[in-house]
Amino acid sequence: MMKRNTFTEGLNKAETVKQTKAVLKQIGELQHQMYAESKHSLLLVFQGMDASGKDGLTRDLFKYCNPVSISVKSFKKPTPEEYAHDFLWRVHRHSPPKGAVQVFIRSHYEDILVPTVENLFTPEIIEERYQLINNFEQLLAHNGTRILKFFLHISYEEQELRLTERMENERKFWKHNDGDWETRKKFDQYLEVYESILTRCNQIPWQVIPSDRNWEKLWHVANSVLRALEEMNIQWPPLKTELR
Amino acid sequence: MMKRNTFTEGLNKAETVKQTKAVLKQIGELQHQMYAESKHSLLLVFQGMDASGKDGLTRDLFKYCNPVSISVKSFKKPTPEEYAHDFLWRVHRHSPPKGAVQVFIRSHYEDILVPTVENLFTPEIIEERYQLINNFEQLLAHNGTRILKFFLHISYEEQELRLTERMENERKFWKHNDGDWETRKKFDQYLEVYESILTRCNQIPWQVIPSDRNWEKLWHVANSVLRALEEMNIQWPPLKTELR
Repeated sequence: MMKRNTFTEGLNKAETVKQTKAVLKQIGELQHQMYAESKHSLLLVFQGMDASGKDGLTRDLFKYCNPVSISVKSFKKPTPEEYAHDFLWRVHRHSPPKGAVQVFIRSHYEDILVPTVENLFTPEIIEERYQLINNFEQLLAHNGTRILKFFLHISYEEQELRLTERMENERKFWKHNDGDWETRKKFDQYLEVYESILTRCNQIPWQVIPSDRNWEKLWHVANSVLRALEEMNIQWPPLKTELR
Repeated sequence: MMKRNTFTEGLNKAETVKQTKAVLKQIGELQHQMYAESKHSLLLVFQGMDASGKDGLTRDLFKYCNPVSISVKSFKKPTPEEYAHDFLWRVHRHSPPKGAVQVFIRSHYEDILVPTVENLFTPEIIEERYQLINNFEQLLAHNGTRILKFFLHISYEEQELRLTERMENERKFWKHNDGDWETRKKFDQYLEVYESILTRCNQIPWQVIPSDRNWEKLWHVANSVLRALEEMNIQWPPLKTELR
């Protein structure tokens, strides 16, 4: 089973922060070019325990990007309309069109996580969802969407610090939710389901990101995003004109 | 009638760029707080001739913001589904929820501009649209959405330089569209309709932004956005808990 404590490499902070900035600038450049070319699309899936820093990562990652082609969807409790459809319906609506980057803060994986831990459905239903999710991701990939899936892995100890800060720092009050402390009691159970997801929905591979230190998390994710963009081999489109 | 040449103040570039950066950081801070409070919403409408720099402005303005609560909608030629509804239907769908910033790159005003210059509808229909747009904006404002409308005013001469660059600079080819040169022939006609719009849809006031120089444009818009955010008197929400 995954350790409660995340693995941390021997990274030098100052040096890493500096290099990350250069990577983020390259991402900004390529994202602009990707929008110009409108041939590829990129989907980033951020999953992680409460307070693993999904929102903050989103802010930092796109510092040098143009929001015109970036959309962020934060999936909360489904609305009645969403509940009235299959669980992938609301997700599918937010898949990125060509040229765009889409971020999912939480995602369709919540529809395995919560029902499993809370025993909301029969095992058969949950079992089928693994397959349905794999099928869904295959469909997006089939259409040329590059999908990067990140599990932001914070330790049990770090989560306590962060949840506590939300009750002490005025600027973080708005993030506080009593329920997060309840969910925290099931930390290991959630970790177990994540382990199952990471194994069984790995057709499009997961990346486990050590996330106790935000600068380290950003470094790993930024490099992965840059690599994906580079692999797209994005080109400036040719001039299309009949004027000459 | 508005001059083809935009008015330029005696701004010092280096000093303005420096001050703009500070303003943008304050916007980032307040946007974060606005998202936390989830009480206000902000709608920015960017209108302007081709190559007036609407996209670039969007990128620059939100440099220090979190894309999680910023959406950008670039309105193009309506789809068949959109055509099958009233002209405000597709616009209304993208009005910002509480806590969010929404940017319209082009907007419902295109539905007066193009039909007027191209004689697509009877004067009566176009006439009614002025009223319908005012009603629509009143509805959004009634719900607490702050609307800032910017006319990015570039000169006829500057537009020529920019459209030409799109045919010469590989990095700009993708923005080129033969049709823009056709539209340019009607520059004065468009300006005339803008003048009418700026007068008659000024219930929620327009701001005319000198846009021949991008740094100057950014300075004016950033200051206006900052003022609007400050006027919201955004507060950090109190802690909501039953744990203590």
